[in-house]
Amino acid sequence: MSFLRFDQTISDWVIFAPSRAKRPHELRSQDGAAPAAAAFEAHCPFCPGNEATTPREISAVRPTAAGVSQWLVRVVPNKFPALTIEEDNTHHGDGFRYMGGCGAHEVIVESPDHSRTLSEQPVEQIERVLRMAQSRYVDLMRDSRFQTVVIFKNHGESAGTSLKHPHWQIIATPVVPRMLRLKHAVATDYFDLTGNSLYTDKLNKELLEKKRILGECDEFVALLPFASHVPFETWILPRWQQASFGRLEANRFAPLAAMLKMVLLKLHRGLGNPDFNLTIDTAGRGDDDKPYFSWHIRILPRLTTPAGFELGSGMSINTVLPEEAANFLRRVEL
Amino acid sequence: MSFLRFDQTISDWVIFAPSRAKRPHELRSQDGAAPAAAAFEAHCPFCPGNEATTPREISAVRPTAAGVSQWLVRVVPNKFPALTIEEDNTHHGDGFRYMGGCGAHEVIVESPDHSRTLSEQPVEQIERVLRMAQSRYVDLMRDSRFQTVVIFKNHGESAGTSLKHPHWQIIATPVVPRMLRLKHAVATDYFDLTGNSLYTDKLNKELLEKKRILGECDEFVALLPFASHVPFETWILPRWQQASFGRLEANRFAPLAAMLKMVLLKLHRGLGNPDFNLTIDTAGRGDDDKPYFSWHIRILPRLTTPAGFELGSGMSINTVLPEEAANFLRRVEL
Repeated sequence: MSFLRFDQTISDWVIFAPSRAKRPHELRSQDGAAPAAAAFEAHCPFCPGNEATTPREISAVRPTAAGVSQWLVRVVPNKFPALTIEEDNTHHGDGFRYMGGCGAHEVIVESPDHSRTLSEQPVEQIERVLRMAQSRYVDLMRDSRFQTVVIFKNHGESAGTSLKHPHWQIIATPVVPRMLRLKHAVATDYFDLTGNSLYTDKLNKELLEKKRILGECDEFVALLPFASHVPFETWILPRWQQASFGRLEANRFAPLAAMLKMVLLKLHRGLGNPDFNLTIDTAGRGDDDKPYFSWHIRILPRLTTPAGFELGSGMSINTVLPEEAANFLRRVEL
Repeated sequence: MSFLRFDQTISDWVIFAPSRAKRPHELRSQDGAAPAAAAFEAHCPFCPGNEATTPREISAVRPTAAGVSQWLVRVVPNKFPALTIEEDNTHHGDGFRYMGGCGAHEVIVESPDHSRTLSEQPVEQIERVLRMAQSRYVDLMRDSRFQTVVIFKNHGESAGTSLKHPHWQIIATPVVPRMLRLKHAVATDYFDLTGNSLYTDKLNKELLEKKRILGECDEFVALLPFASHVPFETWILPRWQQASFGRLEANRFAPLAAMLKMVLLKLHRGLGNPDFNLTIDTAGRGDDDKPYFSWHIRILPRLTTPAGFELGSGMSINTVLPEEAANFLRRVEL
């Protein structure tokens, strides 16, 4: 049972998911009591052999004639979902507006391996994960109640991970988040003014300046954006204009996976396996063919802590220049 | 040397402050190497007797004829400022826009006591801190280059504190942060539609419902907002409409300090001294007299970690209902 409430002061929604909660007394601070990292967890719900302990499988990649535990990538509903398909998406209330927690919350188990990081996976396995993310995105978008599908990965405790076994998550929401609305409005205005995609123009300007480029191939570019919000923030963008990740062609996944592996491995080796969040930013419902947006992958290492200034202003203070971070990462040997 | 860069994709600025940086190799993750908490730090720059180790004092509260170390509240420039008054506020660049790091970054040392938390201070001391915050706000706003003054406090390591000695910070920025522009636009639209202040209307509705009220006095109300973004988020609002914290009358500081102490002490005792951020949200330059905004204090405990979904969508997932949190806090004995 979850629902959304509208925060009128910033014109955005908040998801309330009490079933994901700890009880208030469990939220008490604990002095230095960090859980020990398990090398292998026999009762991990995402490890092969424990398939029965997860909610019913949504999708999986299995070799032909493989057994139930012989999957390569597996998708299951989140056991403590922020949003569920059973909830209603009707809006209620007047000054205090709310709606049911209608949506979806899925987990993509990245591989059968409990502890291998994504950067250490072979390119083919990363490709499988990205294909699965697209396939789930496309399938979820078939439900016309869902306005936005957010694809993300949390790596490490400070990035918000609670289960160690490497996984991605997908949340479909019944509303368009304010930030995404803003991004699309900004890109639309830019297109109206210039006739170009803001993201393609930015990319071309970065390619001219070169200083913040981390890697290039025929299809994709990895770069640390001019106005990065956090140290070592890295984006992967397609060279061509394509609004929706859902439209990425089958033959582009291999080079995308190779580029993602390169970026993650550089961060892993250069910064000592830092915690990070990864998101795939893509056009919203109805904007798949629009010429003004380009989907992209954002990798946001958790090296610093946003504090009162960030919460009070919404702005970021970044202590590392992206050109210096790019320079550092370029020198990391793989 | 710092500067701001414009992130065109979200139409907001990012502050770059490399002087606050660790070098890339220092940002490497360290496995479980948390620094031990010092009980008393003789070389703490904020402790009495060490005044010479801070940059030159901006302001202080001292009893008449007191010595240099006999201050009650002390304001100094941040030694590693995000923004400084010496920088230029001219805008440069075309696609990649930037400007100098023009602004101010000050520290309000809360009391001479190195380890006493704000909640444990007497009301008179909290009042001194709030008065000083207003005084610095008013003084900084005299510099017409500054558009916004953000007043905040970080408590605890996970809230971004680096120096343990309790302190507040003030940052004046040469731009209006996107989020504040949005808040004011939303409140202006609401006023145009209804003739009322959004914040006063919200407050009155909360007072009617009662469920999320934590405390009331003649001047102020403490409540956990209907659409709280994080567990135990608590606001303190004036009962009357007043856009700017800079206009708060002298006789209102004592009841405000008492209300703040009550809220912080409830959180401290109820949740075991949790880390938190506190911000004072106030109207921007030129809007001091506007009838559509009300300044307020926001207290944001750091009990959960925003992760990929929050970074990808800008939306929050809150696992604790504010009415349940309010219920819990109301029962905490002081």
